[in-house]
Amino acid sequence: MTTPIDTVTAFLARFGEGKEGLYDSLRRWFTPETVWDNVGLAVTVGPEQAIELAKRFEQQMGVSSVAIELRAIAAAGNKVLTERIDHLIAADGTERWGAGVMGIFEIENDKIVAWRDYFDTAGTHTLAQKWAQR
Amino acid sequence: MTTPIDTVTAFLARFGEGKEGLYDSLRRWFTPETVWDNVGLAVTVGPEQAIELAKRFEQQMGVSSVAIELRAIAAAGNKVLTERIDHLIAADGTERWGAGVMGIFEIENDKIVAWRDYFDTAGTHTLAQKWAQR
Repeated sequence: MTTPIDTVTAFLARFGEGKEGLYDSLRRWFTPETVWDNVGLAVTVGPEQAIELAKRFEQQMGVSSVAIELRAIAAAGNKVLTERIDHLIAADGTERWGAGVMGIFEIENDKIVAWRDYFDTAGTHTLAQKWAQR
Repeated sequence: MTTPIDTVTAFLARFGEGKEGLYDSLRRWFTPETVWDNVGLAVTVGPEQAIELAKRFEQQMGVSSVAIELRAIAAAGNKVLTERIDHLIAADGTERWGAGVMGIFEIENDKIVAWRDYFDTAGTHTLAQKWAQR
């Protein structure tokens, strides 16, 4: 049986496989109603809005893939809580930023129905401005 | 036996009992080496630095207690992951802010040896400025 932790682990693993891996992952595991909340920054509903947000972020930050380093993962019922370092990787393979993040995923029938990520939004704004000025 | 989740639940419960509850809780469950990281905002070591930070925060935000609403809690070994709404309560009993937070606690022998909280720091800055101008 696929556990909620299995679902989240499989979902995040594909983020490191370039943009197409990330988009495929959002289409595979999101439902049309999935709410993805980057708390304080942006909320999307469904896979296509999520992909649009990922594209905007890629352009602003010059990022072409996101390698997810899981520091901790634990489940309570259908909720999966994670601590991660999201390594934002540029097209030339260099790391733009290693962002500390905690995220919670709510799982139903091997789908992610809600995802909330919490992180240092002030640091993100500063970094986005820095890269925009290059 | 006290589980890591028991330790964190007991630690957080005292935060709602006014400033003295919060300070007592930090002294009871922190060790002299405990690193408390409000990611992107401030890092403290040991209970007295943590209490100084809490006092600064209280003054900036006009907060006199923090009622913790646990939305989710789960453990992986000695690590406890939480999603919370931290209700910042003013001296007159009104709520200043309900802040969405995820935090991870590392437990050893019923002590908190590390605590990292992740949240919308940009929102926190904005709110602190707003209250400072009153």
